[in-house]
Amino acid sequence: MGLTVDTINQRVRNAEYAVRGELAVKSEEYRARLAKGDKSLPFDQVISANIGNPQQLDQKPLTFFRQVLSILENPLLLEKEDVLINGLGYQTDVIARAKKLLASVGSVGAYSASNGVPVIKESVAKFIEERDGFPADPAHIYLSTGASSGVNTLLNVICASKQTGIMIPIPQYPLYTASLALLDATPVPYYLDEAKNWGTDLDTIRKSYEKGKADGLDVRCVVIINPGNPTGSSLPEADIRAVIDFANEKDLLVMADEVYQTNVFVGKFHSFKSVLRRMQQESPGKYDKVQLASLHSVSKGMVGECGHRGGYFELVGLDPEVEANVYKFVSIMLCAPVVGQCMVELMVNPPRAGEPSFALYDKEYKGIFDGLQERATALHKAFSEMEGVSCAQPQGSMYLFPTITLSQKAVDAAKADGRKADEFYAMELLKATGICVIPGSGFGQVEGTLHFRTTFLAPGTEWVGSIVKFHKEFMDKYR
Amino acid sequence: MGLTVDTINQRVRNAEYAVRGELAVKSEEYRARLAKGDKSLPFDQVISANIGNPQQLDQKPLTFFRQVLSILENPLLLEKEDVLINGLGYQTDVIARAKKLLASVGSVGAYSASNGVPVIKESVAKFIEERDGFPADPAHIYLSTGASSGVNTLLNVICASKQTGIMIPIPQYPLYTASLALLDATPVPYYLDEAKNWGTDLDTIRKSYEKGKADGLDVRCVVIINPGNPTGSSLPEADIRAVIDFANEKDLLVMADEVYQTNVFVGKFHSFKSVLRRMQQESPGKYDKVQLASLHSVSKGMVGECGHRGGYFELVGLDPEVEANVYKFVSIMLCAPVVGQCMVELMVNPPRAGEPSFALYDKEYKGIFDGLQERATALHKAFSEMEGVSCAQPQGSMYLFPTITLSQKAVDAAKADGRKADEFYAMELLKATGICVIPGSGFGQVEGTLHFRTTFLAPGTEWVGSIVKFHKEFMDKYR
Repeated sequence: MGLTVDTINQRVRNAEYAVRGELAVKSEEYRARLAKGDKSLPFDQVISANIGNPQQLDQKPLTFFRQVLSILENPLLLEKEDVLINGLGYQTDVIARAKKLLASVGSVGAYSASNGVPVIKESVAKFIEERDGFPADPAHIYLSTGASSGVNTLLNVICASKQTGIMIPIPQYPLYTASLALLDATPVPYYLDEAKNWGTDLDTIRKSYEKGKADGLDVRCVVIINPGNPTGSSLPEADIRAVIDFANEKDLLVMADEVYQTNVFVGKFHSFKSVLRRMQQESPGKYDKVQLASLHSVSKGMVGECGHRGGYFELVGLDPEVEANVYKFVSIMLCAPVVGQCMVELMVNPPRAGEPSFALYDKEYKGIFDGLQERATALHKAFSEMEGVSCAQPQGSMYLFPTITLSQKAVDAAKADGRKADEFYAMELLKATGICVIPGSGFGQVEGTLHFRTTFLAPGTEWVGSIVKFHKEFMDKYR
Repeated sequence: MGLTVDTINQRVRNAEYAVRGELAVKSEEYRARLAKGDKSLPFDQVISANIGNPQQLDQKPLTFFRQVLSILENPLLLEKEDVLINGLGYQTDVIARAKKLLASVGSVGAYSASNGVPVIKESVAKFIEERDGFPADPAHIYLSTGASSGVNTLLNVICASKQTGIMIPIPQYPLYTASLALLDATPVPYYLDEAKNWGTDLDTIRKSYEKGKADGLDVRCVVIINPGNPTGSSLPEADIRAVIDFANEKDLLVMADEVYQTNVFVGKFHSFKSVLRRMQQESPGKYDKVQLASLHSVSKGMVGECGHRGGYFELVGLDPEVEANVYKFVSIMLCAPVVGQCMVELMVNPPRAGEPSFALYDKEYKGIFDGLQERATALHKAFSEMEGVSCAQPQGSMYLFPTITLSQKAVDAAKADGRKADEFYAMELLKATGICVIPGSGFGQVEGTLHFRTTFLAPGTEWVGSIVKFHKEFMDKYR
């Protein structure tokens, strides 16, 4: 008898990843039934609010980006420049960018260097420099297969054993707990402060660290997701300073997951790199040994190109021998998808004012931003009017993470159904409306509280009305 | 003090991956120097014969494939079908295919299902069915980020502990030893038979298995690479039958790395799946519980689209609960690049005779095949005329793996240089000619023998002449 679930790698068996778990699978079954003409369901479409997948829903690709990629895929088009321009309406900067990329990439069908196409790493460095006002070095930039593979690479290098402790926010994006389960390292959870728009609280972080140390762990890294997933928060600079200061005190590597950096509705985005550089400037010598990894991706923001699996991470202050092992790790998987790497180039180096494609790019970009903000506001408003629901103001990312308070009768019904109360609520919502959200237990939440995460990517307001209606009926049923 | 090479994950530190190791890094330095106009080197180009990266060298993309992808990247082109057809010469089947894919994929910028786009998995199943003459089930097909990520997924699920033994061929593609090092599982090496064109030898496999068991290992998988990397072999059906029979006897999962299945110059390719199905037909009941994973990729063959990172694996006979864990593992990394998935669709479902794009596709495909065969033959001929070199006949894949016999004086010079003899030879070759090959020690070889792996992808014959000239001078110098 061959492999069984009892003999396989138990770390895989124990890993959990709710974003694509039972609810997601069920929602795909519904989608398939609807596509086959099934009329027996109480809804006529499935809305995947469980996953930040903009182009599955309403978000359109940015035209300039896709025009350039169409040429990279078929460079023979460059033999007919007049047709591109006069027949297809391609601007000259589309063609120029495609030529520039092809000159350095060669064919997008060839492997690149393991850490990415050199010219694209240079563009990323310039982008970081413009964003932060401090220089960046392409030698420490690694292009990755989305940010997820960057996280995977870094955790593989950092996690030495079960005794390795990695501080993660709760609630968190479950990639972190899943990866730590696979690597058999130990999460050291610290709670975010729902009362302060899901910000970080230094006392909480410190207590969590002390507990990890008391448990015998070698705590060596603190993960921050900013803007927050699943929380929708956007950290003020003071929170970031406090985390860096604490990491400096305890020799922790800071892993800053900043994939939602352009999805910011309130205040502005502060990168960990820029705050670190300012702190280093203000207190010469004090923060010199801080180690930072910051991650970004083409999947989110107004780009929203998840399917292209492009991303990068920048390393600051790492020991060169450690970095050599990061390089070796990425080389085993050969390289990130080259078209995805080119998408990174376009994200970090979009059309500038005065260039032929700028007007359209700017209009599309702002249109997407405004649409997201409007929907976030509308959804937040609906939540604030629902009985037993409270929700922090939408500050950033693509999610809202409302608290729900359910009656004992609902909790008992969930138990009878063999589910946690928030899982039960989310499953009932899916069955009644076709809307798929993820229960808070998939991300972690304070014991005794209940939440769910929903994106606000779906177009229109009808689905928001469906949630309101379902919620009222659910509350009435279990009153 | 933060992370150091002594405190990081020592499994990463201990992993070795020669394909992108010291020689590859040195060759890229030379390339950069040449690009900057450095005239001090004794060669004027670097030839990366270290890595099977067809489009970095001479191989052109297949036109039909790239035309379809250009539309997938920019679907707005479909609004100007007349321009595509009359202005750009796109055939109607290009447009029809793009429409079909877009209808099922949606945007290539959206995440797909974790295990791949359903319609593409169906195309893969049809391809396997046509190739093998036996049905395939899309439910057991997983689209992956090249074959490497498929290997990574499978080994993650299979390897439970240090006691897990995985049988790997020696010489092997170093992804296997590197992945096992990362997972802290134990390779159980079995030698291929150089005297029989690097075929598998059942007695050797059996002895290796027995040794693994005697060492206390739970041997649970046997890896076969066919056609061979680095060996250039192509297994006869009898070898495959013997392996399946043995795997059946010992309850081993067979992992068949078949990424070079169209790079076959002698005889024909026999897939493990087809041979297994025939054995099951011939001996009803006897082979019912054989577990097989077979992997394929868009990176090799006449497609040669490494940079697109597309691939798939098919699972046969696995326990459903085990397969659920394979699914969970792939879901954590979200999905394979969607454009790479579309490349898989094109590879498994190319233009057929009678369709408008067929003539060009067929001409391009055969041209690439013939070119590879010619270069393999020319390189093999050169090797057979070189002193102290012997090389198996090129049967398949993209590599030759000649044996070299070096003098004691050369071995001493290598030792003085701090290198193994084959590493020294390869480094001297690179320094003298700009040609980068990989020493046999990067793949494993019988103790006391020396080899190197070279691709035969580079165009022209001049570089072959450079190897011949270098070799003669090297042999003369250390006579």
